[in-house]
Amino acid sequence: MMSIREQAQAAVKAERQLAVTSTKVKDEALLAMAAALLAQEKEILTANAADMTQGKAKGMRQAMLDRLLLNHKRLEEMATGLRQVAGLADPVGNVVDGRTLPNGLTIVKERVPLGVIGIIYEARPNVTADAIGLCLKSGNAVILKGGSEAIASNTAIAQVLTKAAEAAGIPAGSIQFITSTEHSAVTELITLNGLVDCVIPRGGAGLIHAVVRGASVPVIETGLGLCHTYVDAGADYEMAAKIAINAKTQRPAVCNAMETLLVHQDAAADFLPALIKELQAKGVEVRGDAVTQKLGKGVVAATDQDWATEYDDLILSIKVVKDLDEALEHIARYSTKHSECIVTRNYEHARKFQQCVDAACVYVNASTRFTDGFQFGMGAEIGISTQKLHARGPMALPELTTFKYLISGDGQVRA
Amino acid sequence: MMSIREQAQAAVKAERQLAVTSTKVKDEALLAMAAALLAQEKEILTANAADMTQGKAKGMRQAMLDRLLLNHKRLEEMATGLRQVAGLADPVGNVVDGRTLPNGLTIVKERVPLGVIGIIYEARPNVTADAIGLCLKSGNAVILKGGSEAIASNTAIAQVLTKAAEAAGIPAGSIQFITSTEHSAVTELITLNGLVDCVIPRGGAGLIHAVVRGASVPVIETGLGLCHTYVDAGADYEMAAKIAINAKTQRPAVCNAMETLLVHQDAAADFLPALIKELQAKGVEVRGDAVTQKLGKGVVAATDQDWATEYDDLILSIKVVKDLDEALEHIARYSTKHSECIVTRNYEHARKFQQCVDAACVYVNASTRFTDGFQFGMGAEIGISTQKLHARGPMALPELTTFKYLISGDGQVRA
Repeated sequence: MMSIREQAQAAVKAERQLAVTSTKVKDEALLAMAAALLAQEKEILTANAADMTQGKAKGMRQAMLDRLLLNHKRLEEMATGLRQVAGLADPVGNVVDGRTLPNGLTIVKERVPLGVIGIIYEARPNVTADAIGLCLKSGNAVILKGGSEAIASNTAIAQVLTKAAEAAGIPAGSIQFITSTEHSAVTELITLNGLVDCVIPRGGAGLIHAVVRGASVPVIETGLGLCHTYVDAGADYEMAAKIAINAKTQRPAVCNAMETLLVHQDAAADFLPALIKELQAKGVEVRGDAVTQKLGKGVVAATDQDWATEYDDLILSIKVVKDLDEALEHIARYSTKHSECIVTRNYEHARKFQQCVDAACVYVNASTRFTDGFQFGMGAEIGISTQKLHARGPMALPELTTFKYLISGDGQVRA
Repeated sequence: MMSIREQAQAAVKAERQLAVTSTKVKDEALLAMAAALLAQEKEILTANAADMTQGKAKGMRQAMLDRLLLNHKRLEEMATGLRQVAGLADPVGNVVDGRTLPNGLTIVKERVPLGVIGIIYEARPNVTADAIGLCLKSGNAVILKGGSEAIASNTAIAQVLTKAAEAAGIPAGSIQFITSTEHSAVTELITLNGLVDCVIPRGGAGLIHAVVRGASVPVIETGLGLCHTYVDAGADYEMAAKIAINAKTQRPAVCNAMETLLVHQDAAADFLPALIKELQAKGVEVRGDAVTQKLGKGVVAATDQDWATEYDDLILSIKVVKDLDEALEHIARYSTKHSECIVTRNYEHARKFQQCVDAACVYVNASTRFTDGFQFGMGAEIGISTQKLHARGPMALPELTTFKYLISGDGQVRA
């Protein structure tokens, strides 16, 4: 078995070919990979059944078991995802800028793959197919390190896709799957400077923080979302309720769901009593400050810890604030800079909120649930960056590339 | 005295104001800062004299003492640099992309400052003024950690500039200068996740590697340059010699200077003998493989270590290769991905070299010494990135920004 360093070296070598592999070959490979997933459904589902049995034996929570589960429909979705990536524009080779200097040198700034990307992820086996598809299309070699709970499923998917990709002309070695389930494998992968160009952790806060703290190769931090919605005085409260209910309950476990609702003091009495009832009817546990507690039955007292917690669950904390400035202060203090929203009718407040809030996505009068590569019309998503270097917000194919400057001259030297 | 964490917290607070400070205020501040540098020349030069005395007492090398030295001319240059930055376009607020989705949501992708940038640098006191100027213009708060050898000079420059900036309307706290000369100050600065958005080390390989290895905040790796020039068979050897001499000798201590010359075997006998003499006449120590040694007198045998060494000095290693592919292999193995050059008359070779070499800047028929923000027409430079995330090659003002998505709707929720 290859060591992780050897796998990375093989990826580097493959990437030199993959970087100059044509779009046509890559797209045909993606379609072949989609077909292979379905053709080898039986092997993949058998492997997944083994993971499920293990997971149940270990007492894994139902929500986690559901993430782990594969079936025909989910394999179809993974195949559809690969086909969609085949249909997207290839960012590699795009000329993004350029100029001719007074001395006659021409400079062309051209998109090229990042190189070797490490993806470190948790229980969802679909990430294996998603990540392979997006990395290959953007000309990157990929090294996958999935969670131990899904090791059999991930191994099966990676094998099927690797075989199909190589048969379709993708350079051998472009897809590296780490079979070790030891944590030391992660530590090694994230310190392979000179071999790995970037790692992207996908999973919970614990995984992401461990990678950020332990990596010496560049990391793109993704998916930490403590998102707020602020309801201004005089807002359309019906609209505000619709947005708040959607942002909290449409899919509470994801990073763009709302965790804290901030309400202007002049809006609280009109807006909150009905909203709290509606949230509770939808199974949401409402926690709130003293004012909120007075406006709704069964509202638990929120502690300072609540303002700092990404529940990822049917729990919402509500705070009544004096004005927009207090809302901005609260957001600046607790936001993970993912997605923030104001519901207002006031032009100046809308403008100030968008100018002053430091986050990847700043909304006026819409649910934060839209922060997503597909929703944004980017055609794909490998994650949502919550850092500011390189990519911010939803990351699709162009975010998996860098560029190089091609300079052409006629013997120019520097004076 | 404030702790480094307190300084970073103050920078974060100031940055919220600085991010929305107008271009006019920033430009007027930069001009006032330039004037203050010259008005307080005496204090700054007195502080620098103290650093110089210390340096000499500690037996600092002449080249280092020269980097440390300030005089009227150098202060004039620093002031000119600040004035030039005032004249550059402000990247903050530029709309770089956008669209309207079928559901009516409009998305605007707008440039915003990175936030708080840490600059860690060595002996050159001019970096203090350069970094402050570029960070402020791009709306970023800056935390400076200079080398202990220049502590008096840097402290004086930072004080003069901070006072002038604040008097001109830059939010107090936007410029933070770390007075501690302990290495632990660096360790603390590069692990302040949540407060520091990015650190940029500027200096030698030791400093850069230490920051890359030790940082948990995002780093932009800069300035490691093991640059090659490959002379193809049938190239214009007069042009090739001019380019090689320029790339090696025009300023050997900088990162875009050539360290290794690769020569096609069919070019070696015609090209190398005269070139080696000319290099040696210019004081270059030539090291070479067996073929090169036969083609020139006084050529020291190159070891494997030579191919991996960034001399930053008047030393050049020369290797004769079988063909373009061997040159590409050598570059792939030893390059730091900074700047690489081919000298050729062959169109296919030129195209293949630019496609296959993985580096920030890939030249045909021009000196690698052009890799520089000013030479590239970017108007400024805070460093040359040799990593692939965020920025690659020369970094100017836009490279000190990120963006946010501003999404405006009319009550849209996700289905």
